[in-house]
Amino acid sequence: MRLRELGEQALLDWIRRRAGRKRTKGLLLGIGDDAAVLRVGTGKKKALATSDMMLEGVHFDLCCQTPYQLGFKLVSVNVSDIYAMGGQPRFAFFEIGAPSDTPVEFTKQIFEGVFDALDLYKAVLAGGDVCASRSGLVLNMSVIGEGEKIIKRSGARVGDSLYVTGPLGDSACGLALMKKIGKPVNIEKKGKINEPLPWEVMKPLLERHLMPFVKRKKPPQRATAMMDISDGLLIDAIRLCKESAVGVKIYEAGIPVSPQMREAARFLGADALMLAKTGGEDYELLYTAAGTKAGGTLIGEIIESGYYIAGPSGAVRKFRSGGYEHFSGT
Amino acid sequence: MRLRELGEQALLDWIRRRAGRKRTKGLLLGIGDDAAVLRVGTGKKKALATSDMMLEGVHFDLCCQTPYQLGFKLVSVNVSDIYAMGGQPRFAFFEIGAPSDTPVEFTKQIFEGVFDALDLYKAVLAGGDVCASRSGLVLNMSVIGEGEKIIKRSGARVGDSLYVTGPLGDSACGLALMKKIGKPVNIEKKGKINEPLPWEVMKPLLERHLMPFVKRKKPPQRATAMMDISDGLLIDAIRLCKESAVGVKIYEAGIPVSPQMREAARFLGADALMLAKTGGEDYELLYTAAGTKAGGTLIGEIIESGYYIAGPSGAVRKFRSGGYEHFSGT
Repeated sequence: MRLRELGEQALLDWIRRRAGRKRTKGLLLGIGDDAAVLRVGTGKKKALATSDMMLEGVHFDLCCQTPYQLGFKLVSVNVSDIYAMGGQPRFAFFEIGAPSDTPVEFTKQIFEGVFDALDLYKAVLAGGDVCASRSGLVLNMSVIGEGEKIIKRSGARVGDSLYVTGPLGDSACGLALMKKIGKPVNIEKKGKINEPLPWEVMKPLLERHLMPFVKRKKPPQRATAMMDISDGLLIDAIRLCKESAVGVKIYEAGIPVSPQMREAARFLGADALMLAKTGGEDYELLYTAAGTKAGGTLIGEIIESGYYIAGPSGAVRKFRSGGYEHFSGT
Repeated sequence: MRLRELGEQALLDWIRRRAGRKRTKGLLLGIGDDAAVLRVGTGKKKALATSDMMLEGVHFDLCCQTPYQLGFKLVSVNVSDIYAMGGQPRFAFFEIGAPSDTPVEFTKQIFEGVFDALDLYKAVLAGGDVCASRSGLVLNMSVIGEGEKIIKRSGARVGDSLYVTGPLGDSACGLALMKKIGKPVNIEKKGKINEPLPWEVMKPLLERHLMPFVKRKKPPQRATAMMDISDGLLIDAIRLCKESAVGVKIYEAGIPVSPQMREAARFLGADALMLAKTGGEDYELLYTAAGTKAGGTLIGEIIESGYYIAGPSGAVRKFRSGGYEHFSGT
């Protein structure tokens, strides 16, 4: 059956039943009215709000991703932004535009991905919008969360060290692998393939790209600035520096790369370090703190101005963005 | 210049400058970080959140609407949802997907419409997302507000009267006029035309469709249920009834119709009453209250079950939805 046959109201009814009537603290009124009624960020806590759009042909390609994965990922990219402030996600609002001839089951699978991810992050769907689209699949999500000690991008100080919470480039490498595989892989249903590389090499990379689960890594108490890496290490490091009015020197040798990524990059004929520096969607946290033992992997230092990268030989050169920028397509 | 030449970062910088650093109560951190930091709905108040998507070819047609009008309207449809709960809008999150060859000036005009409308509603832009689109213009907005006495859809009781805050069908009639005119009318810049009807007849109808300004009408203290009419009186009345587990009898003769709409409908060969009953996007409030003198225009009564409409002659018949439903295209 297609959405045209089901109709908007029946889809809305299904969503509401699927969301259930969970008794969630702070959710005074959920799906079904003109607006959700919430109690969030009271007392010592503050409310956090973020949003992300995912468009067909730009952020995803139906040739290579299952609808479940799209829903799951949309939640993760938003949750990552909340974690990047030092907060916890609470309520999600999901807007979807889909062509009228979209199979109902396909649409429901997107929602299943959304619901499963929200469960894992201990958040709930509190509202959204459903509409017909004449131009491919359009997904948008806003997440409202809360946090007590908020960590902004703007607090980095000269002399701070720069840290990252985990290996970089896995997602970009997973994307490159998917392009080679050329069809969806049902990781969520334990689906696996051993082509063109062993599954234990590909799995973590594909998972990181297709349906990333963002672990909440407790940032060090003394983190001075923080953000998540969504467009690439170099471009995002510049963004953090601009907000803090400082410069940075990144140690190329310090950038963490997973062994799987190194192996896959070799197979793909790609430069692992380049993927780690400019690949997007890793959703690791980038943060600054005083001293060199603040936890995480030390990858650089905050300086007065300019953006520099020190190669393994010690040679220092300037760098520009290098990462995903919309409109330019680079 | 086109977005491709300007680049994402330069557009983001412009948006942030344009948004300014308004000191707004409760906005602890606005555009520029991973998430906005807010204080909203504290004390006796509760937080409200709603979202709406607007897609090219479905919700709007660039042949007949200026970019400014699109931005303005997107704010209004969200604010209307907040008003419909008895609340006040505070913070907006705006996500836009635009093709890379979109003129920069066109894009900025959308934002001008957003900013001007937010100013009128005393709300501010607190965040959002900007991305390239391969499939037309994609707009989405979430608005967070707050309110003390929240009015849900679910409180209507048998015996309550049904009220509406203003004339219906104006927006649908304005849309029909725009299709006849076939080119954008710059109402926002005092642009006017006298074809095919006198301007004083067309203006309020076009305005209602192109860039509706939702007046905050204080609902009566004793309103038992409330919602805004966005898809059409009949379909929305059914929604309110379903939430309240009641039925309704609507008096056709009571439905308010503006003199301009009546005149334009006559010219268009359309049935004014049909437009008023099924036309969407009027953003008037529909509410129930005990007694027949609760303010607004009395248009019906809440009964135990069933959806009925009483014609001018007194003949009563059943009705079904009749209004805009996505996917079915009716």
